[in-house]
Order: sequence, then C-alpha cells, then structure tokens
Amino acid sequence: MTPTGAVHEALAALELVDHHCHGAVTADLTFHEFESLLTEGESWPGVSPFDSPVGIAVRRHSAPLLDLPRHAPPDAYVARRAELGWQEVNRRFLSAAGVGTFCVDTGYTPQPITSPAQLARAAGAVACEVVRLEQLAEAVAARGVEAGEYPAVLRAAAEEAVRRPGVVAVKSVAAYRTGFALDPRRPADAEVTDAAARWLATGGRLTDPVLVRHLLWTAVDLGLPLQLHTGFGDADVRLHRADPALLTDWLHRVAGTVPVLLLHCWPYQRQAAYLAAVFEGVYLDVGLALHHTGPARARAVLEEALEITPFRKLLYSSDAYGVAEFHHLGALCFRHGLAELLQGRVDADELTLTDALRIASWTGRDNARRIYGPPVSEPARVPRGRPTRKV
Amino acid sequence: MTPTGAVHEALAALELVDHHCHGAVTADLTFHEFESLLTEGESWPGVSPFDSPVGIAVRRHSAPLLDLPRHAPPDAYVARRAELGWQEVNRRFLSAAGVGTFCVDTGYTPQPITSPAQLARAAGAVACEVVRLEQLAEAVAARGVEAGEYPAVLRAAAEEAVRRPGVVAVKSVAAYRTGFALDPRRPADAEVTDAAARWLATGGRLTDPVLVRHLLWTAVDLGLPLQLHTGFGDADVRLHRADPALLTDWLHRVAGTVPVLLLHCWPYQRQAAYLAAVFEGVYLDVGLALHHTGPARARAVLEEALEITPFRKLLYSSDAYGVAEFHHLGALCFRHGLAELLQGRVDADELTLTDALRIASWTGRDNARRIYGPPVSEPARVPRGRPTRKV
Amino acid sequence: MTPTGAVHEALAALELVDHHCHGAVTADLTFHEFESLLTEGESWPGVSPFDSPVGIAVRRHSAPLLDLPRHAPPDAYVARRAELGWQEVNRRFLSAAGVGTFCVDTGYTPQPITSPAQLARAAGAVACEVVRLEQLAEAVAARGVEAGEYPAVLRAAAEEAVRRPGVVAVKSVAAYRTGFALDPRRPADAEVTDAAARWLATGGRLTDPVLVRHLLWTAVDLGLPLQLHTGFGDADVRLHRADPALLTDWLHRVAGTVPVLLLHCWPYQRQAAYLAAVFEGVYLDVGLALHHTGPARARAVLEEALEITPFRKLLYSSDAYGVAEFHHLGALCFRHGLAELLQGRVDADELTLTDALRIASWTGRDNARRIYGPPVSEPARVPRGRPTRKV
Repeated sequence: MTPTGAVHEALAALELVDHHCHGAVTADLTFHEFESLLTEGESWPGVSPFDSPVGIAVRRHSAPLLDLPRHAPPDAYVARRAELGWQEVNRRFLSAAGVGTFCVDTGYTPQPITSPAQLARAAGAVACEVVRLEQLAEAVAARGVEAGEYPAVLRAAAEEAVRRPGVVAVKSVAAYRTGFALDPRRPADAEVTDAAARWLATGGRLTDPVLVRHLLWTAVDLGLPLQLHTGFGDADVRLHRADPALLTDWLHRVAGTVPVLLLHCWPYQRQAAYLAAVFEGVYLDVGLALHHTGPARARAVLEEALEITPFRKLLYSSDAYGVAEFHHLGALCFRHGLAELLQGRVDADELTLTDALRIASWTGRDNARRIYGPPVSEPARVPRGRPTRKV
Repeated sequence: MTPTGAVHEALAALELVDHHCHGAVTADLTFHEFESLLTEGESWPGVSPFDSPVGIAVRRHSAPLLDLPRHAPPDAYVARRAELGWQEVNRRFLSAAGVGTFCVDTGYTPQPITSPAQLARAAGAVACEVVRLEQLAEAVAARGVEAGEYPAVLRAAAEEAVRRPGVVAVKSVAAYRTGFALDPRRPADAEVTDAAARWLATGGRLTDPVLVRHLLWTAVDLGLPLQLHTGFGDADVRLHRADPALLTDWLHRVAGTVPVLLLHCWPYQRQAAYLAAVFEGVYLDVGLALHHTGPARARAVLEEALEITPFRKLLYSSDAYGVAEFHHLGALCFRHGLAELLQGRVDADELTLTDALRIASWTGRDNARRIYGPPVSEPARVPRGRPTRKV
Repeated sequence: MTPTGAVHEALAALELVDHHCHGAVTADLTFHEFESLLTEGESWPGVSPFDSPVGIAVRRHSAPLLDLPRHAPPDAYVARRAELGWQEVNRRFLSAAGVGTFCVDTGYTPQPITSPAQLARAAGAVACEVVRLEQLAEAVAARGVEAGEYPAVLRAAAEEAVRRPGVVAVKSVAAYRTGFALDPRRPADAEVTDAAARWLATGGRLTDPVLVRHLLWTAVDLGLPLQLHTGFGDADVRLHRADPALLTDWLHRVAGTVPVLLLHCWPYQRQAAYLAAVFEGVYLDVGLALHHTGPARARAVLEEALEITPFRKLLYSSDAYGVAEFHHLGALCFRHGLAELLQGRVDADELTLTDALRIASWTGRDNARRIYGPPVSEPARVPRGRPTRKV
C-alpha cells in the first residue's frame, strides 16, 4: 500500500476539486466532542469511535500532521490538537488536503463551523457555495408566508440565494426527508399550496412529500447542478429508501435539464454507476464513504464505483464535516485508492499510463470544472510556498 | 494479470457455449454509430463511450485482432474497422471468441444484424435460437386478434415458434416491462382476456402486468428453459425492480417445471446466487457485466457470483449485441476472470487442479449443454484450421 | 493464503465465542443425508452440494480431521465419517473448532441433534442457550390458550423460558415469517388478541404480522439480547425482505433497550454495518456466510462487513446446523479471513499489531462476553490436553 509509481505522483500533485463538503469547527474540542465528530453515530460508552476504521485512519494519517508519530494513541492525539488550537489544526489539515477549490454546503450548521471564506483562507484555496434547498424552504417558512404565496416566495428566495457570488449548485436531502420512492411528476401548484398550508400550520422540519418533491423541481427550474444525498448518512436516513435507483423515473423526466450529482452512494455505488452510465446528466462520487472506510478500503469502494462508470462521470468529494481531518483524509483516501486502482491496471497492461493520468485529472478535478463552470473551472489561487502534501 | 497456468490454458482451449447473445451489425459503422453501440447509454457530447471501462477494454483487447497495436486510439480503431469492412470484422471477432455454440435472442433488432445462421457462419460455429416472448405477443397483436382469442392464439403462436428447428429456449424481458414485484399466481383466463382487450384497444408495447405475467406462465407451459433478463440494462430498466430476489414467490410456484436462467444479474449477482443455491431449477450468468466492466473487474464480479453458487449453476453468456467485439470480449473476460479466480484457489491449495478444470468446463460449456440439450449438447462443427484464440 | 504472522497465531490460539449456532446430528449419515446437510437448498440429481464452495471447503479443511488427505473425494469422505461414527466425528470437529462458549439456538430441530449440554461435552466447552420466540409462541398455541389470554400466557412462558439456567438471549426469525417491512409500533393488546383469535382458529406456523411484531416487542420487555436472522437462509426466506435496513424505524423505537444482534446479514452486510455504526445497541456477524463461501471468500465478506463497522460491534458465529464440520469450518474461515484482513493492514502500516490483536480478541470473543454477560463472559472450562487446532 505504499504509494509509488507515476500515477501516485500525478495524483499527489493534483490540485483537487472537493465538490461537496462542509465547514470545520471553530472551537477547541474535548475528547468526547472530538470522538462525536468522528462518527455518523454517536460516542457510546465502551464503543469509542477511535475503535473504528475512521478512528484507525485518523491515528495513522492525521497524527503525523500534528507532529505526532503514526498511530498515536487517542488521548495524545486530542491533547495535541488542543495544544495547537483549532485555527492551526484547521490550517494544517486543510492546506495538506491539496484541494484547490471547495464547494461548501452551507445548509448544515448544528454547531459553529467555518464559513466558506474562512475555509478557503485556512486552506489557501478557493471556496464556492452550495445552497441546501430544504434549509432554504424552512427559512422561508420561519420568516412567515401565506400558503398561497409559498411557491412564488420560495422561488424568489431560491433565485436570490443562487444569485449570491460563488454559489455553484443546489443540494437536496430528500433522501433523509422522504426517501426516493417519490412520485416523479412535477406537482401542480394547487398540490403545493395545499401541502404548504398543512406544513405551515404545524411547522417543524420539511418532510411533506409534495413539498420535498417540489424542491427537486425547483432545482430543475433554477438551472444549476443539483447535488443529492444518497445512501450512507446518520441514523436519520432509511438506507433502503436512499438507493439512487429509486430515482430512475424522476431522472427520465428531468433528462436534458440540470446535471444531477449523486453524493456518497455507498453501499449503492453500483446502482449509482448504472444511472451515470445510462443518463447523460447523472454523475456520482463516493464522498463520506472514503474517510469512513479509510485507505484500507478506498480502492475497493472506488473499484465498484468505477466498474461501469464513464470516466467523465465520477467526481471527488470529501463530504467532510466538523473536523478538518476529514477534508484531508478524504483527499488522501481518494488519491491513494484511485492511484492503486489505476496503477494496478497500468501494471497489468489493461490501461496506458496516458489514459490513467487523464482519468486521474478528470475525476479529481476536471469533471467538476466541466459541470460547475466558473469559479470552479478557474485555476485556484493557491498561495506559493504551500507545504508539500503528505499522502 | 498475464494469464498463465494450467487453468488459463484449459480455459483458453475450451469451446464455450454462449447461451445468450444477439447478432452483430451487418453494416460499416461511423465513429458515432460505433460509439453508440459501445454503451447501454448513449454517446453524449464530451462523454465518449471510449472513455469508459468497456471502451478501454476494446482498445486494449480488440485492437490487436484488427492488426492494430494494443490501446490504439479511438479514431484509428474505427477507421481500421471501416477499412476491413463489417464482414471481415465480424469474422475475426466471432471466430476469435472461441465459442462453439451461440444461443441467439432473435427478438431485439432495432437495426439490421446477423441472423443466427449468419452469426454461425462468421464464427465457424453452431447457432441456436431463443424466442423472445414479449416480441411474439406483440407480433400476435400486430397481426390482429380478438381479446377473447388472445390466450389461444398466443399459445399457438408460441408453440409454433418454439417448434422451429434450432429453438432451444424462450426469453422474457418482464424486468423491463413491469419489473419482478409481480403477482406470482397464474392469471385466470378471464383476467387475461380482460387485460388483452385493454391492450389491443390501445396498442403499443406490452406492459400490462397481467399479460406480462401470463407470458411467464406460458413459458412454463411450453416446457423449454426460460431466460430472464435481470439487473443491468439500458435506461429503460428500473434496476431495483429487476432484482431477481423479487421473483422468489413465483419461483416457488414454478419449482419442478422449467429451468429458469437469470441473465446478467449485476449488481444483484449475490441475490441470484442465493436463488441458484436454494432452487433446483434456477441458474445464473453475469453476461453483459463482463464486457462492460472489462477484464480488470471480471474476476471480482465472478467471485461474487460464485460465492455460494453450486458450480453446476453458473453459465457463460456474452449478451453481446451489435458489435462483434463484444462476442469476443465477453468470452475473453470470462476466460480471464474465471482463470484468475480458479488458479488463485489452486495456488492457495483451496481447490485441486482437477476440480478447477471441471468447474471451468462446466461453467463455460457443460452446464449449458445439460440444460438445453440438443443441439447445444452436440459437439460443435467448428471448421479445422480456425486461427488460435488470443486471450 | 497460507496463514502466517502474529495475527494468524493470535487468532489460532484464541478461544472463540460462537454466539449463534445449532446442534450437530446424533446419527450416522448416508451419503445423501450428508449432502443434504451441506446446503441451504437440497441435494438435486446432477447438482451435488459437494460441487459448491462449501463442499470444496469441507473436502479441503474437514477431511484432514478425519485422517483423510486434503481434498478427499466425497465418497471416501462420507465413508470415513460413517466408519468413525457420529460421536467421534462430532468430538473431533467440535473440539477442533477452538470455541470456548457456544450459544445454541434450541428452537430449530427438524431432526435429532445434540442438546447444548451434549454439544458442550463433545467440544470440551461451555454451551449457553438461545430461546427462539416463534417456536415458543407455537408451543403456547399447541398447549391450548384462549385468544384473550394469549398475551399474558405468552409473556409468562417467555419469562419462564429465559429464567432457565444458561439462557443468554432470545431469537426471532421474523425475517422468514413476515420480513422486516413491518409496522414498527408496539401493537395494542386488542390488536394482539384479535390476531391471536384468527391464528388460534386456524393453527399452523405463526406468520401473522401483528403476532410476529408482538414477539419482537416481547423480546424488548424480556430485557435479554435479541438475535435476529437477517439475509441468507433457505428457500423459505424472501431475501429482499430480510434486508436489515428495513428495520430502521423499529430500531429507532427500541433504541436504548436491548442489544439487537443481526445474524448472517449476507448479502446485506454493508447495510448491517451501517446500522451497527449509527445505533448504539446494534451488532452484527456474518455467520452462515463464512462456511458457505469458504475460506477463499471469507476475507472478502469480512472486509465488507468491517468497512465502517466499529470494532466492538462485530461478533463471531458459525450458525452451524447439523454437521459438526460447520462448527469447525465457520471458526476456521473466521480466523483465516480476519487474520488475512488484519495482517494485510498491519503489513501496509495502516494498523498497529497491538490494535490488530485487540480487534481479533474483541470480535472473536470479547464483544460477545460484553453483550451477553455470564456465563458467556466467564472463562471457558476447557479440559487440558485438548488437541491443538489445525487452522
């Protein structure tokens, strides 16, 4: 697993686009707080998140960036983190990630985290923004709106949100709210206002199937690429309803409109690959899965994701949230796993080195540039003298 | 990945039965036409099917058969193809496939392709025929029939179709038309005639669930092996409804009647393996998946397909359609992947060489001979002097 | 695949807890009877279970324990088995399994098999008991009960059953009876008595969805760990309805009550891993899958099961039934596959040896001790002089 060879070197030097991530916390963390951010579950008595693949990977690959030996023990790790302070910790991991452009989902902020601008500054990179549609709708409801005006007010709010500088995409967490076994048709205005009347009367999270579906169609109208959470997530998801294959009817209806980017996908990466192979506008990544499985399985997950996927259809994302370790670890796992996969094929004479290098650049950077356009497609303004990445 | 060892040699020499494939086009192809035939999707601007696992595999493994260097560029590849002409191209790939018997689904002909006899002649092999039931029913409707007579007329047409010389099986694409979450019961005559009345009044593709189900039961009455498309296909399929596990109730009802052959299966090869392990009459292959994933993943897909499958239950098929490259590439991937799998177990002393060779012959040829009987079970009449296969 | 290295040695020496298995037959077996016990299907003409991964594994790994050469032919194998007699055969395999504690599901006895005490004696180990709830309910019905009294009588019978010495858990086969797409709510008493009235009037197997669900909630009230069959089994299961992800709503409702142990899981081991990662009380194993796939695939299945699973959440079970070969083979596959997985990561410097050894002890023994408590958590009383395991 020691990364060697021309593909490894090219991927180590490649300025990635992380097309879907979140901010890093802007506070020093206690042991328990850090543990809680390591897992999509929680930190339970006797079952430390350090004793999981992601915890093992953090001790192995993140510790050296804090000047600790590889495989440092958890206590020492969290102590050193506090000693350096969150700004320095974020700066080290974010710059070591070797990401030129971050696309940041700004709609999930259960605790104080970096803004896109702060993330960019710490990384020496560019940050763009992804607008989360459910959060936008909930903000519209919170400000007060009549049911009859909901469609127009939502539409105006969405158009205003995506006009903000640096916004490159919208995102939906329909997978969490209703799952994908949804009616694929565009809801009629009367359906939407009826559903809005019910929701606005009771308040709370947006989980009404008509309104969630309406958000997906709003995304189509906005014309920006649409990111969709699929598969793996926290306990709030129903995994089998987040299988992207369930979206097929809807994808037929929206074919030829906006690009649809299937995020995470695990364990349905093959289903996502099928969709990417047969629909022009469908793309996928295996973000979140990469750092949770760690480098030991990154290649295996990428092998499945790439089994039939056209090479212009896979993107890189970390889906990192909270700890900047994940922004770095995701990039490391992607580089490591993809290099193993591609180098293995080159060594077996199944692929030329030239093609391998193109696939590496496409998936790590150029596919995102092609889909999102500026500012993602512009060369990153990375300051000189950024320390060399450790991969 | 260089194929070496006794298992590789035995598989390279084995005359395969390709128990499910289609014809090859009988025309020279433009670049765009060739690209379109490489993918289950389409050829989209900026996303060439050459830039996908199957395209990489064609450049690597098909180019040498056209006297081009390995990994020849796409333009040169298609130009050389046109230079040789489609007859010579078909002849080269079909004979290099090393297939003794092709079972050809003749019910899918969106463009002019070889008949079974033409395919056989080009390959120096035998070709049998597989009758597609939905196409048969649509032909019955097109010829004009009263709803009340539909069951009898369909039955007579089916019996006539399967009496034709060389017909060895029937096939259903119920996976595409309704999916497998179907009522497992045999429909009553009144249900069938009612459904037929509705369908015949409107025309179009047969997608009525009663009539599609009626075709599956017609297959049971015909007594021939029934091939079922499952899993991976073009954008017309709903992948999650093509999971063969959904057929379990129906398989219980038809147990002890006809053999049921689950085609393709990917990504549900483990679900198909479960069915093959617990139902006497159920078999599977991973056709279509093999050439679409290419040799780099053929072993991995076969490993999953064979995890619990009895070795008399796996068959070889290419599911090649359109370009004869796929008839050759499917065979190459099968030989390559299975040889790696079996040789790996022999080398680890998990399997004897004798058993490995039996498994190779069974899955590549003898299981099909056992299920289909003559003429599949008769030695192929391959002309002497056929050029040695390159694998 | 030759097991070497420190992890292999540690796992070879580790006294396992087999937290879910059944008894071994107490009779000599004909060739056909032995074959039938090798498969979750049946023994069919021309498709011998010996010609499947599990049959290959038995000939390779079980034969030497009967003083036969590796890969002994099936006839010789079964003849030698009869020659030694079932007591000696059971003694050899059960002691060679290297299991200190067996948790025995006593609710599935289609033929005479060892009691937990007999199993323990033959193995030189400790045996605990797992009470199967559907069998308990059917026994209550068989003894005669008024529908109105069913809830109270069942509850009393369950409490009595789990008070028996050595009972450490309860088990449900709801996966077989209704599948997991169940109403997650606790059924009201009136619903239960209504359903009981219907069931008691007709008799037969318990398949009523209200009553099956009531048993799951009874398990919660009993307070003991609950084992759930999920995924792979015989032809009676509907695989897609045994996907543990379907339980998510129910798991939310019972969070914080009893541990829930997902058994087998294959091919849904990743779905089970997700649940184990996000619910404190959820655990998994890949029992049954291990010996059915054999050592050649044990690592691959464990790799998927451990992709994101916290290392305190995976347990070992054989799910062996009928032939003591499986009690041994399950343990061998677990040791073999896990050692390859862990040693591979140690060799790649992705894991320290210390951590690898902890993970081996946790998953093979200590996680079960932690969950079940005494007597599972007490050191096994293994007699001295037990022959060294062959792994």
